[in-house]
Amino acid sequence: MALEKRDNHSGDKHGAFAYEGLDRIIHERARLAILSSLASNEGGLTFNDLKDLCALTDGNLSRQLQVLKEANLLEIEKGTSGNRPQTICRLTRAGRKRFLEYIAELERVISNAAHPSAIPFGEGKVKGASA
Amino acid sequence: MALEKRDNHSGDKHGAFAYEGLDRIIHERARLAILSSLASNEGGLTFNDLKDLCALTDGNLSRQLQVLKEANLLEIEKGTSGNRPQTICRLTRAGRKRFLEYIAELERVISNAAHPSAIPFGEGKVKGASA
Repeated sequence: MALEKRDNHSGDKHGAFAYEGLDRIIHERARLAILSSLASNEGGLTFNDLKDLCALTDGNLSRQLQVLKEANLLEIEKGTSGNRPQTICRLTRAGRKRFLEYIAELERVISNAAHPSAIPFGEGKVKGASA
Repeated sequence: MALEKRDNHSGDKHGAFAYEGLDRIIHERARLAILSSLASNEGGLTFNDLKDLCALTDGNLSRQLQVLKEANLLEIEKGTSGNRPQTICRLTRAGRKRFLEYIAELERVISNAAHPSAIPFGEGKVKGASA
């Protein structure tokens, strides 16, 4: 009975835990690492910086940078350091905005975990179930 | 030059943004939704509760519940509600522990975003690069 009542109530909370703001491009762990590094380093980071900070292989980093560039989240700029060619990656303005939106959704995940009673659904007692 | 210096320093921060605590089983969005719902409802949730709260299809929810059960993160219990069979899902003790560890790592992601200077890498000025 209690369960049926909960089912009836659940309509009010439809999608309350769906976390649709967890943008699939950003949510993948390696890409999250890259974007998080870049968000913390406004001046940009070199390929080697990123490889090290994110503990990624060359191949994986290259691949993920390409995905992020195609999604217009970051820009890759060629320059020089001393006499050596140097590539630097930076968040685009759109990338920073989308990253912050993603972070706001992560804060919801944490807030739900910290306040379990925020979206209560009753006792969950089932006849025949162990306590 | 500035960039080379940063490369030399980056060893100190190796993997600082790797977020290895973002357990792959938990990090997938649909599974994160399920675990987050269950963590907020200690008494457990029915299949229909979860479907609604997480805005998932029957097929996807079934599949993800199976993955989570095989990883020992949740248990699925058969009971009755009135005269009808009723299935209820709950976090296992190990599932709750791993979910909280995952949440702690998410807090690091947010903390890094909130305090960009926590892991600084200099100015990122590249000769020939636009400001």
